Amino acid sequence: MAKRLFGTSGIRGSIAENVTTDLALGLGRALGTYLKGTGGVGVSTDARTSREMLRGAFISGVLSTGVDVVDLGIVPMPTTAFHSVFKGINASVIITASHNPPADNGFKFFTRGREFIRTEEVFLEERVEDKKFLIADWSQVGRLSHYDIRDDFLGRVKEFALERGSISSGTRVLVDAANGAATNYTPHLLRELGFSVVTINSHQDGYFPGRPAEPSPKNLQDTMRIAKESDFAVTLCHDGDGDRLAVIDEEGRFIDQNRVIALFARDEVKRHDGGRVVVSIDTSSVIDELVKAEGGEVVRAPLGSLQERLALDKEGIIIFASEPWKPIFTDLGGWMDGVAGAARLSQMVDEIGDESCIKLMKTVPEYPMLRDNIPCPDEVKPRFLPIVKEILIQEITGVEKILEEDGIRIERNDGSYLLVRVSGTEPKARLYIGAKTQETLDSLEKIGREAMDRATEQALKRS
Amino acid sequence: MAKRLFGTSGIRGSIAENVTTDLALGLGRALGTYLKGTGGVGVSTDARTSREMLRGAFISGVLSTGVDVVDLGIVPMPTTAFHSVFKGINASVIITASHNPPADNGFKFFTRGREFIRTEEVFLEERVEDKKFLIADWSQVGRLSHYDIRDDFLGRVKEFALERGSISSGTRVLVDAANGAATNYTPHLLRELGFSVVTINSHQDGYFPGRPAEPSPKNLQDTMRIAKESDFAVTLCHDGDGDRLAVIDEEGRFIDQNRVIALFARDEVKRHDGGRVVVSIDTSSVIDELVKAEGGEVVRAPLGSLQERLALDKEGIIIFASEPWKPIFTDLGGWMDGVAGAARLSQMVDEIGDESCIKLMKTVPEYPMLRDNIPCPDEVKPRFLPIVKEILIQEITGVEKILEEDGIRIERNDGSYLLVRVSGTEPKARLYIGAKTQETLDSLEKIGREAMDRATEQALKRS
Amino acid sequence: MAKRLFGTSGIRGSIAENVTTDLALGLGRALGTYLKGTGGVGVSTDARTSREMLRGAFISGVLSTGVDVVDLGIVPMPTTAFHSVFKGINASVIITASHNPPADNGFKFFTRGREFIRTEEVFLEERVEDKKFLIADWSQVGRLSHYDIRDDFLGRVKEFALERGSISSGTRVLVDAANGAATNYTPHLLRELGFSVVTINSHQDGYFPGRPAEPSPKNLQDTMRIAKESDFAVTLCHDGDGDRLAVIDEEGRFIDQNRVIALFARDEVKRHDGGRVVVSIDTSSVIDELVKAEGGEVVRAPLGSLQERLALDKEGIIIFASEPWKPIFTDLGGWMDGVAGAARLSQMVDEIGDESCIKLMKTVPEYPMLRDNIPCPDEVKPRFLPIVKEILIQEITGVEKILEEDGIRIERNDGSYLLVRVSGTEPKARLYIGAKTQETLDSLEKIGREAMDRATEQALKRS
Amino acid sequence: MAKRLFGTSGIRGSIAENVTTDLALGLGRALGTYLKGTGGVGVSTDARTSREMLRGAFISGVLSTGVDVVDLGIVPMPTTAFHSVFKGINASVIITASHNPPADNGFKFFTRGREFIRTEEVFLEERVEDKKFLIADWSQVGRLSHYDIRDDFLGRVKEFALERGSISSGTRVLVDAANGAATNYTPHLLRELGFSVVTINSHQDGYFPGRPAEPSPKNLQDTMRIAKESDFAVTLCHDGDGDRLAVIDEEGRFIDQNRVIALFARDEVKRHDGGRVVVSIDTSSVIDELVKAEGGEVVRAPLGSLQERLALDKEGIIIFASEPWKPIFTDLGGWMDGVAGAARLSQMVDEIGDESCIKLMKTVPEYPMLRDNIPCPDEVKPRFLPIVKEILIQEITGVEKILEEDGIRIERNDGSYLLVRVSGTEPKARLYIGAKTQETLDSLEKIGREAMDRATEQALKRS
Repeated sequence: MAKRLFGTSGIRGSIAENVTTDLALGLGRALGTYLKGTGGVGVSTDARTSREMLRGAFISGVLSTGVDVVDLGIVPMPTTAFHSVFKGINASVIITASHNPPADNGFKFFTRGREFIRTEEVFLEERVEDKKFLIADWSQVGRLSHYDIRDDFLGRVKEFALERGSISSGTRVLVDAANGAATNYTPHLLRELGFSVVTINSHQDGYFPGRPAEPSPKNLQDTMRIAKESDFAVTLCHDGDGDRLAVIDEEGRFIDQNRVIALFARDEVKRHDGGRVVVSIDTSSVIDELVKAEGGEVVRAPLGSLQERLALDKEGIIIFASEPWKPIFTDLGGWMDGVAGAARLSQMVDEIGDESCIKLMKTVPEYPMLRDNIPCPDEVKPRFLPIVKEILIQEITGVEKILEEDGIRIERNDGSYLLVRVSGTEPKARLYIGAKTQETLDSLEKIGREAMDRATEQALKRS
Repeated sequence: MAKRLFGTSGIRGSIAENVTTDLALGLGRALGTYLKGTGGVGVSTDARTSREMLRGAFISGVLSTGVDVVDLGIVPMPTTAFHSVFKGINASVIITASHNPPADNGFKFFTRGREFIRTEEVFLEERVEDKKFLIADWSQVGRLSHYDIRDDFLGRVKEFALERGSISSGTRVLVDAANGAATNYTPHLLRELGFSVVTINSHQDGYFPGRPAEPSPKNLQDTMRIAKESDFAVTLCHDGDGDRLAVIDEEGRFIDQNRVIALFARDEVKRHDGGRVVVSIDTSSVIDELVKAEGGEVVRAPLGSLQERLALDKEGIIIFASEPWKPIFTDLGGWMDGVAGAARLSQMVDEIGDESCIKLMKTVPEYPMLRDNIPCPDEVKPRFLPIVKEILIQEITGVEKILEEDGIRIERNDGSYLLVRVSGTEPKARLYIGAKTQETLDSLEKIGREAMDRATEQALKRS
Repeated sequence: MAKRLFGTSGIRGSIAENVTTDLALGLGRALGTYLKGTGGVGVSTDARTSREMLRGAFISGVLSTGVDVVDLGIVPMPTTAFHSVFKGINASVIITASHNPPADNGFKFFTRGREFIRTEEVFLEERVEDKKFLIADWSQVGRLSHYDIRDDFLGRVKEFALERGSISSGTRVLVDAANGAATNYTPHLLRELGFSVVTINSHQDGYFPGRPAEPSPKNLQDTMRIAKESDFAVTLCHDGDGDRLAVIDEEGRFIDQNRVIALFARDEVKRHDGGRVVVSIDTSSVIDELVKAEGGEVVRAPLGSLQERLALDKEGIIIFASEPWKPIFTDLGGWMDGVAGAARLSQMVDEIGDESCIKLMKTVPEYPMLRDNIPCPDEVKPRFLPIVKEILIQEITGVEKILEEDGIRIERNDGSYLLVRVSGTEPKARLYIGAKTQETLDSLEKIGREAMDRATEQALKRS
Repeated sequence: MAKRLFGTSGIRGSIAENVTTDLALGLGRALGTYLKGTGGVGVSTDARTSREMLRGAFISGVLSTGVDVVDLGIVPMPTTAFHSVFKGINASVIITASHNPPADNGFKFFTRGREFIRTEEVFLEERVEDKKFLIADWSQVGRLSHYDIRDDFLGRVKEFALERGSISSGTRVLVDAANGAATNYTPHLLRELGFSVVTINSHQDGYFPGRPAEPSPKNLQDTMRIAKESDFAVTLCHDGDGDRLAVIDEEGRFIDQNRVIALFARDEVKRHDGGRVVVSIDTSSVIDELVKAEGGEVVRAPLGSLQERLALDKEGIIIFASEPWKPIFTDLGGWMDGVAGAARLSQMVDEIGDESCIKLMKTVPEYPMLRDNIPCPDEVKPRFLPIVKEILIQEITGVEKILEEDGIRIERNDGSYLLVRVSGTEPKARLYIGAKTQETLDSLEKIGREAMDRATEQALKRS
């Protein structure tokens, strides 16, 4: 089996060691080979300093197989995904490491609006390894053209937003675009939707001078302080390539991702009068609460598997999907879209929140939650989860549902839940708990921690 | 005489009424005619929504006379001026209304690094009026090319800055580029000079969504609040085209322009071991105090006349010049340069201020100042100033110098001064006073106001 | 009534006197006003030296009304027309003087694939005269973008050609693209259709260094000699903007336009199993002969009126239309297309001519023809035609049809015809005769010349 | 020792087997490593279909080492060489296979106006083999920019030409630019120099539709026929990248390269009042005759070694150099320049030839010459030349000079010469003879052929 290159969200790594020009060339050749040497591919980048260095080799690789390339320049990830449904395009690729540090870069592949699924990734991994690439005859080498997709994308997202909400009468919004690819997108879109937009960290610069690209509370200290001290109705923050959206209210408080997802999910379910929402396994039951109240259904999927679910959903039953930070509005397309998320969130602040993010968030309950990491050596992992499961099932009462695709998640009939997963990249297990009261959470925490301790102990013994 | 189009700082006005496509075409034809139908012209714009609308017609006009055009795209005003010293270029023009509202636009003309002087402007005004334009033969029509001048300009300013200061070790700086032409310049330049740069209002947008383009205390409320609440060593603010620089300290206080000018002037005099500084008539004596202390000389010139002075200064005696907001570093070139100003100010915060703008500004005295407008009907104006002068000379003691080129400015031997000017565009007279103590200022104010009242009265009687 | 600007084929004239930057600006403003300040317009040019000079002002004018502009660069006229059916485009305009000398330039306007009709032209003429232009608010000024339409157009024409014919196996073709806008189109299209292409006069140069832009026998002396001495199956010649097609056989003989039209018309009628062909009044009856043989119908229209006919043809009854040199393949679109004509002609040389243009042309009869100019002073013109008509009707026997929309054309039942027109721009009348035998032609010529002489004489007397 | 990649004129080969994207990436990385990761590199291509495919990977490689890249687009080889003397540029590289078939491509490296010499090539070969490449830190990755160098280059060549000759009054010239990179250069340059230019095979197309890229008599059949049948004063032909120049007179006769070189050499010697001319070993003594008559000196160098000679010529003694087809005007720069050659040849037709190439060539004697290939198995080669030399020295009388650096060349005091070389790439030996009379040539041929036969025989025996 070929060496695994793809993680849960594309390929990422250091440009000095992993994501090299050699890999870029190989991936380009592999993609062209996958497309059997015909058709066309869009190629974009985020604003990182290594963008041209990887772009050139990747494009060369694609062209060498006979596949044409449309160079899209620097655009957000959702814009790249949007391009993959254009006429004559078989796939679109963005060179980005999303929220990783500037020394990293990576690749994300899209087709028909969704990310590549595992079988597609495996094909690329195998070709990069065995180097069995198509080579086009000189007369069939691919051709390179350029296309400015910005207006198409923003026009479509604007249309999407205006199907749902209306033009604002100047509500003040602060945008922090991480000095990244969305700097020329989100602020202008919001302005066109009627908002009064102030930006921070929104000149484009691959050094990420303002803050690290991940929109975490730790990295958003400046932004949160500004949100608090100024008078913006809401503050919206991206990562480097614009698939992520973090929200800060006018008191400078960072809103938990589960509540943001719940907000979007409720809204889409309302509009569709029901429908299926797919969220990743690590999300809280507040989503279920809001979705069910509007007649919808929530399905949980392993982390990194939303794309597979969307690929299988031929009838279009899924009306919304999300991992933390990354909403997928399936009416718009099958991609994670922080730009469209920013537009909808701003509109909801107007429509539901009466121009106040705090008021808007009052419509989404805030329950006690816990997330922690417990050491879990790699050799322990294979036996760890079965033991944990065995213990939890015995100990936890009122069980409504058990999910076992990615770790073990036990959902109780009082809306509380407990999830134990093992990390794919670190020697750690993760514990997630949510409940409507602190007491319930405390008792579940006790059970969970003991189960994990005992499982580690037993697994070590048996090994 | 042809209708006057140029004000003290180029042509500006509403695109609907004054600065129309017709004017743009006429100005282009006039400029080409001025150049006798040969040579080359650079054309740039700021980020306003009307930029392409005026650019096309202006370029057409120039080309029609046989002069070539180099399209520079969107760049700051200082960058345009810098281009006018390029090989093969006879003039460079920026389409900008500087800090005016977005509904306005305008034109600024440069040659050999300085703005057009009045005789050059008059030629253009006359041709726009009499329409006596050169028309090139079809085989001699000018050619259009494109040039990306950003790296040349930033490289030169970086070199200039590094001749004076050193690379910072990451001092935190906040930049507010007014969503204008300098958004791709100042933040990147400061980053290359070693500063840790956060930006606000620095995504480019011709709607000026963040704040009006003029960097006045009133328009910088958000920015001053952020400067106060965060921990930036200094905050630097531009207007729409980057010739202006406003400075805010870490307490969020807006620094008076006279003190900023004094800072730059002192620095240049030190480096040149003396030399002449030319400042506009409306500046305060704190500049004189600092310049003289370093062995330099201060000359005052009427508002809008710095360019004439520089044009006449063939021997290069002038080492620095400035109007409020607009420093001219003559070692760099004869243009107003807020971008270079931002670089030097940041470096001085490091070097002199020990990474604190407050500490830096402590090296520049802060004296009582007054600036006020008094109604002065247009019919009164011709007699107003002679009467004011007569009265002031009688009333003010300790007079050291009297300047009469632009209003009347009386400088006293204790460093205090009083200036009365009449506005060229409004029915107003302006009173400026500076002194080392509030008492002196108060007594000068009393004299000044009485003189102006009496002059208005007498002038009205006589008319 | 406003001054007439448009001739039978757009606006044309000297850039020094008529087609000035002022006119360009006015036309742009007029077009935007016609579109009520919304929507989008494509703008292209041919390769003339004055292209940028007129393009800038025209685009400025359009933008100033609030209409967006897509800059298409240098493309052939048919490509511009093709663009006018793109999504979001209300009109497309090419700046060209077609086959005029390089000192001229001009404008052609297209909408939905056809040229502007007279009512549309009149609107533009009136606005240029009364200067009642829309002026957009600053926030609504049009935006400029760029688009490379070459692949779309060539792809569509290739598709069109392959619906009709097949890929050649390397038949040698010589192309003379007049150093104009089609130099990057016809040679590459023919190569993609399998032909072996040699070009002459096909580097792009607005000085038309190789030959004057009109593809007349006089201007094609070099090309005809080369066609004769070399071994190309056919030689295809354009004018400066690619709407015209002239054909030379392998003996270096220039093929009469009527026979080229007949060839295309016959082919389209065959494919459509009948249908209407519209040709200009000055074309010969060989077209009728071939069209009728395949079950089609020929309609004659005044010169410059084909666009009106196509605009009225809502049901799509017209399957082909043509003026001399300028075929319109309505399956492709309503524009004159020398590029598509070159593709089809080459394919027919393969398919029908067995790789010989001479053999191909043997399938189209060659009859005696005459075309001459007779002096006709402007003051005579109003009475001239009625008298001519009166005389001709008396003298000519066997009359089958009389057409009076543009001059007088009498068609006889033996296929012969006689047409007398007066020129709209010169003090001349024109005589056209065609017949199956020289005797018939001679006798018609005698009648025609006498009628014209007498009519001139009588008209002079009466005036 | 690393595998040899460079031949006598850069790297060339099939894109499917040798000149792959992998090699392109490796060469880019090697070049950046050679430059120690700093400075800048220009990159251009000819018009081949594989240009983008190799360009992307090559540029990626350079950028990955920290070296900046200026993308020059499609330009002739001499233009690329010219770029290598630009400020801030350490090397310029063209991706071209010169006159090879379209299925090939390759690389040529320039620095300070001359091609890379062997030591520089060896460094690149070694790095491509050992893969010891510099890798820049993410913050130091090279930056990509674009530059349009056409006007700079044509302006310089025009200046060079006008220092030597004057503006033509419209002499008719035919240019055949091989559908290659010079199509936008030579025709426009000659037009600006006053010539009336017709072109053949001068639309740009990487398929080389008109003729194979090598301007040999065999490939120029069409062009020679046209030259003969039309009335051009001279016909000038390039290869795919414009370093080569072939000349055809108005009778359609292909002019021998030695006489073209002699013409240029004589002209430069005249202008410099003497000086050194360096030509490759395979050139004829007609060059010596003309150069000596003007007081100059001729030096012969092995094939592919002119660049080394120029690199060593620090004092600038060499005033002209040439291989067959490829003149180097050292006043212009150290590169082979068919474009400048075309300009000078055309001017000489005016100045010396009275607007007739035939008359011009009458000033250069035409002597009997012979060039033939004799089979010479690779195993024979090591012993072959010493034996040949031994025999020739015995047999040939009147020897004036013996050159042994590249084969053996014997020059006699009557101006005749005989050269025997072995091919570096094929199992062949080559015989070149020139003499003033056919008798002398015949006798030398007899001696030469016998010597080669005997040498082959003896070498085979001994092996």
